[in-house]
Amino acid sequence: MPKSPEEEHPQKAFGWAARDTSGVLSPFKFSRRATRDEDVTFKVLYCGMCHSDLHSVKNEWGSTVYPLVPGHEIVGVVTEVGSKVEKFKVGDKVGVGCLIGACHSCDSCNNDLENYCPKMIGTHGPPYEDRPVRYGGYSNMMVANVRFVLRFPENLPLDASAPLLCAGITVYSPMKYFGLSQPGMHLGVVGLGGLGHMAVKFAKAFGVKVTVISTSPSKKNEAIHHLGADSFLVSRDSEQMQAATGTMDGIIDTVSSIHPLLPLIGLLKSHGKLVIVGAPDRPLELPIFPLLMGRKIVAGSVIGGLKETQEMIDFAGKHNVTADIEVIPMDYVNTAMERLAKSDVRYRFVIDIGNTLTVA
Amino acid sequence: MPKSPEEEHPQKAFGWAARDTSGVLSPFKFSRRATRDEDVTFKVLYCGMCHSDLHSVKNEWGSTVYPLVPGHEIVGVVTEVGSKVEKFKVGDKVGVGCLIGACHSCDSCNNDLENYCPKMIGTHGPPYEDRPVRYGGYSNMMVANVRFVLRFPENLPLDASAPLLCAGITVYSPMKYFGLSQPGMHLGVVGLGGLGHMAVKFAKAFGVKVTVISTSPSKKNEAIHHLGADSFLVSRDSEQMQAATGTMDGIIDTVSSIHPLLPLIGLLKSHGKLVIVGAPDRPLELPIFPLLMGRKIVAGSVIGGLKETQEMIDFAGKHNVTADIEVIPMDYVNTAMERLAKSDVRYRFVIDIGNTLTVA
Repeated sequence: MPKSPEEEHPQKAFGWAARDTSGVLSPFKFSRRATRDEDVTFKVLYCGMCHSDLHSVKNEWGSTVYPLVPGHEIVGVVTEVGSKVEKFKVGDKVGVGCLIGACHSCDSCNNDLENYCPKMIGTHGPPYEDRPVRYGGYSNMMVANVRFVLRFPENLPLDASAPLLCAGITVYSPMKYFGLSQPGMHLGVVGLGGLGHMAVKFAKAFGVKVTVISTSPSKKNEAIHHLGADSFLVSRDSEQMQAATGTMDGIIDTVSSIHPLLPLIGLLKSHGKLVIVGAPDRPLELPIFPLLMGRKIVAGSVIGGLKETQEMIDFAGKHNVTADIEVIPMDYVNTAMERLAKSDVRYRFVIDIGNTLTVA
Repeated sequence: MPKSPEEEHPQKAFGWAARDTSGVLSPFKFSRRATRDEDVTFKVLYCGMCHSDLHSVKNEWGSTVYPLVPGHEIVGVVTEVGSKVEKFKVGDKVGVGCLIGACHSCDSCNNDLENYCPKMIGTHGPPYEDRPVRYGGYSNMMVANVRFVLRFPENLPLDASAPLLCAGITVYSPMKYFGLSQPGMHLGVVGLGGLGHMAVKFAKAFGVKVTVISTSPSKKNEAIHHLGADSFLVSRDSEQMQAATGTMDGIIDTVSSIHPLLPLIGLLKSHGKLVIVGAPDRPLELPIFPLLMGRKIVAGSVIGGLKETQEMIDFAGKHNVTADIEVIPMDYVNTAMERLAKSDVRYRFVIDIGNTLTVA
C-alpha cells in the first residue's frame, strides 16, 4: 500500500518561499520525507544565493511551480543518518548542491557525470516524473540521498564554503575537463561576479595566470589587488583587447547577458577554448572564420558531477579557497534579491539560516 | 647582390589564370623559381578544383591579387630535386596541398601544425612579406620546399587522390583531433559535397557509423548505397531530426552557407562535438543553453599539418580511400566553375593537366 503524504513527508520543515511571479519570498511551512536508509538529514546553517534563484523566483525560465523554496548552495550539520549510511555521522559538516537525484544507469552517471544525466533531478523545482515538488535550502532542514551529500573539511568556514556548491564547481569543472588548470597556462575570466571571482581564485590555486575581462574598469583594482588576478582587460577598450590577441589558452565566460564572442575568440591562442558557463537566454553570434583559422573551441559546461564536486571541495580545503561573501539574515532576502538583480554584491550573498530563520 | 627576377624565377611555366572579378580563367605564361637545394620540382598531372577556388577567382574574400592561378590539390611526378633532398627522387609520385611555407619556429610549427602557423604561406595567393605572388596548380609545373611535398602511394590513382590534399585532410584532421575516429562511434556528416563525401569515406574506413545530414532527400540513395553511409537524415524533416536527438558522438559540418546550428547540437550526445569545416562568411546563431546542458563543443578546423597530411595519404592508400571525381580537360575549367557554383558535381572536379594543358 502506498504511504499517505503524512507518512511520506512526516518531518516538519520551515523556510521562505516565493508564491508568484513577483518573486517576493515570505515564510512558508512544509514537510520533508522521513530519513530513509540511504538518506542524510541535516540542519541547514547557511545557504548561498545564486543568480539563478532570482530567475527561478520570478519564473523567468518558465518552469517554476509555486510555492518555490529556492537555494542550492546548502550547508549545515548532520542530525540523522539512515541505517545504510556509513559515510557520515551526526555532527558532520555537510552540504547539498544543485542535484539530489539522477538515474545512475546512463553513460553520464556511469562516468560520475550525474549533472549531465538526462533524468537528473535538481534540488529545488517542479514535479519530475513520480517526484513531488522539491524545496531548496532557504529552509531549516534538508534530507537527501547520501550520494548527493558532500563533506566539508574542518578548516573551511561553512558560510564562505556554501558557494562552492554551485559557483565553485561551475568554474572548477570546465577548467579541469578542458585542460585549463595546468600551471603556467593563461586563463581569461569574463565577468567578475559570483562565478567569476571563484574562477580567479581556483585558477590562482592551480598556478594559472589569470586575466579578468570586464566591461567595468572600476573592477580592476579589486581584481588584481584583492583577488590576485595577474592582469585586467576592459572589454570595451579595443586597444587593450587588440594588444592581448592570441595570448590565452582558455577563457571561462561567466556572463549571462548577450555579449559579443568575436573579441573573446580573438584573445585565444590557436587551439584555445572559450567555455561559456553563463546562460544567455538568446543565441549569441558565432563568427566561423576565427574559429576555423585557430582550431578554436566554443563550449558550454554546467556544474559538475558529485565525485568532482567532492574533489573540488577537498581541493578548496587544501588551498583555502572560499567565496567572498556578504552574510545576510533571512528577512533581508528580498532586499538581497533586488541587489542581486543589480549585481550589487561582492561576490555572493549567503543567508545565515542557522541564526536568523525563526520558525513562525 | 640580390638576384634579378629572371635569375630568381628562371623556370618558364604555363597555366590558366583569372584576370579580374569575372573569375574567367584563360591561358597565362609565368615563371617559377629555380630548384633550390631543398626544393622538389614536379610535372603537374592533375589538379583538383576546390570550392574555395571559386571564391578566389571572383575575389569574394577580398584578398585576391590578379592574375590568379588557383589550385591547391596538385599531384604529379618529380622532375628535379635539390642537392639536399634525400626523401624524393625523379619519377616519384608527389603532391602539394594548401601550404608551401610556414615559420617553423612557433608553437604550432613545433607541433607539426604548420596549418595554424600565423605566418603560414598558402600555395596560391597574394604577396606575403618578402614573398611574391604565388601561383597554384592549374599549371604545368610546380616547385616547392621538400617539407611541403607529400608522397603518394603506388596503389592510388593520382587523379582521384588529388582531392585528398585539401578535401581529404580537411575532414580527416578534425576526426582525429577531436577523437571522432574510434571504431563504433557515431558521426554525423552535414552536406554531401567534396568535403562531405570524403568524410563519409574516411569515417567508414575508421569503422565509425556515419549518418549523412542533408537538405536534399535526393541524396539519400547515393549516400547509403554508393558511399556506404549507415543512415541519412533530411535536415528539414523535424520528425526525423527529433528521432535522432542525442545519438551522435560528433558531427563534421561541411556547409559553407548560413544554416542553423541548434538542430545539429540537438543530434549530439552529451559531451559531443560539432566541428565546422565549411566557412560561412557571416556569423551563425549559437544557442547557449543546449551547449551548457550537455557540455557540448562547437569547434572549427582548417586542413592539417604536413605530418598529418602524409599520415592521411598513407591511411588512404592502405584503405583505398579516394575521391569520387569527374576528370575534365583544362579548357572545360570555366564551365566547371559555373557547375561548381551550383554544386553540380559528384563530388570533385579534377583537371587533367598532364594530357590537356597545351602550352600556347
